[in-house]
Amino acid sequence: MPRLLESVPNFSEGRRPEVMEGIVAAARSVAGVHVLDLHSDADHNRSVLTLAGESDALSEAVFRAMERATETIDLRVHSGEHPRLGATDVVPFIPLGTTSLAEAVAVARALGERVAEHLQVPVYFYEEAARRPERQNLEAIRRKGFEELRDAIGQDPERQPDLGPSAVHPSAGAVVIGARGPLIAYNIYLNTNDVRVAKAIAKAIRHSSGGLRYVKALGLEIPARGQVQVSMNLTNYRKSAVHTVFELVRTLADSYGATITDSEVVGLVPMEALVDSARHYLRMHEFASEQILESKLLEA
Amino acid sequence: MPRLLESVPNFSEGRRPEVMEGIVAAARSVAGVHVLDLHSDADHNRSVLTLAGESDALSEAVFRAMERATETIDLRVHSGEHPRLGATDVVPFIPLGTTSLAEAVAVARALGERVAEHLQVPVYFYEEAARRPERQNLEAIRRKGFEELRDAIGQDPERQPDLGPSAVHPSAGAVVIGARGPLIAYNIYLNTNDVRVAKAIAKAIRHSSGGLRYVKALGLEIPARGQVQVSMNLTNYRKSAVHTVFELVRTLADSYGATITDSEVVGLVPMEALVDSARHYLRMHEFASEQILESKLLEA
Repeated sequence: MPRLLESVPNFSEGRRPEVMEGIVAAARSVAGVHVLDLHSDADHNRSVLTLAGESDALSEAVFRAMERATETIDLRVHSGEHPRLGATDVVPFIPLGTTSLAEAVAVARALGERVAEHLQVPVYFYEEAARRPERQNLEAIRRKGFEELRDAIGQDPERQPDLGPSAVHPSAGAVVIGARGPLIAYNIYLNTNDVRVAKAIAKAIRHSSGGLRYVKALGLEIPARGQVQVSMNLTNYRKSAVHTVFELVRTLADSYGATITDSEVVGLVPMEALVDSARHYLRMHEFASEQILESKLLEA
Repeated sequence: MPRLLESVPNFSEGRRPEVMEGIVAAARSVAGVHVLDLHSDADHNRSVLTLAGESDALSEAVFRAMERATETIDLRVHSGEHPRLGATDVVPFIPLGTTSLAEAVAVARALGERVAEHLQVPVYFYEEAARRPERQNLEAIRRKGFEELRDAIGQDPERQPDLGPSAVHPSAGAVVIGARGPLIAYNIYLNTNDVRVAKAIAKAIRHSSGGLRYVKALGLEIPARGQVQVSMNLTNYRKSAVHTVFELVRTLADSYGATITDSEVVGLVPMEALVDSARHYLRMHEFASEQILESKLLEA
């Protein structure tokens, strides 16, 4: 059986296209690995690369991309809106098709061993690949980011890496590697530049502070647009749906006199997540996914 | 993106299954072409075949099916309720996914050239592939059918084919080939049993009486549900979008104190039509279809 997986490594570089081109080329140099998407964000100074392939080839491609990122990204001169720990910041593996989550965990763990040994970068395992329950949540590992970890890693036993050196790599920091189900990176923009509004909404909707079960959220300022953003990860769109999140943000924004100007998916989104939203708004209560022409086609 | 198209050729045969089996087998003999549906109607003595594939393969499959139909269907001994001009009567090409209508037009035109040359069948182009504006409408070409055209084609300049001989093929007649957007059969239910409300809304939204350009609509009573229905054909969902129709019906219903209880698609719907609606309601103004994971996977 082919063990098809997706990997969505996040790199701390969103402003120098030539750097990301080098990283993508390194990943692409492995036969059988497909580069599905690259999304670079200058405000966040961050890029999200989407790769797919069978586990061995995919793992090799991610390693080569990380190796290149370690050589070409220096966190000491990096700044951006988004918190980050490393040049390669987060590496999730996601099962596709009939591949099991356990397989994704195994690939994540093996890559971690290799990175710790060959790149001298401390490795933390998160989500399904976590070795300590308190590290399932990415934010509990990342906290305030590279500068904070640099000081704490050798002092605070809670911040010891799962593998690798007890000091951050001087320029490339540390990396968080893991396995999870499909995730949607989803941002909503408001017609205000008051970041307190975005932060209050993020707090109300995220699971960690009492909100929706499969939503992570941050309120961010986006100076280039003169707007604020509710920046989210939807970790299970079947249970915490995109339209549920949108409507809740809309209602909460309204209580501050703010409205949603637009929303965006960063990177890729499963068709089903958008079809579910169309079905909701159009009140198509009896609609079956088999009625989608493309599904019929994929079947055939 | 692969240039994925659908074609729905209509054949003048609905009573001899072995003849249609031969035609379907001819289409299926082309690798990469999917037979999605075959619907034969004995009263009409007519069959509708639904095929999908990339443009070159699909065009080849339709040609082979037409070639077989030309050999096995004889209009001189054919009768049925439905007007028809040819053994293969009508061949529409419909863009799927991100394929453009221009591509469907190009495929239709190229197939027409090949048919005129190799099958000795006169070819008329209709809808988006029409070469004369008066031939956009299929009925304006087909008129009273094969027997009428047989006499008129050499006499009446208005009935000259766009390509091929100025005489019908003795047994296979003529063919009408074209391109159009996908059609969506879409119904909206209201929480009233007053059919006058549905009829008034249908009149306001349909093109023929001043409404949306690509909407056909009727107001119907659905006694089994104790509700009324606005029953529609959306002939170009890219220009008269599902959500535009839905919102207009909602507003008009409101002026009668009525609300929409639900809506439904009859049969198949292109993914893009629903994705467009999700994009509208979620205000995802910058969303690109390439961000759909399934599109990317199909590409790879």
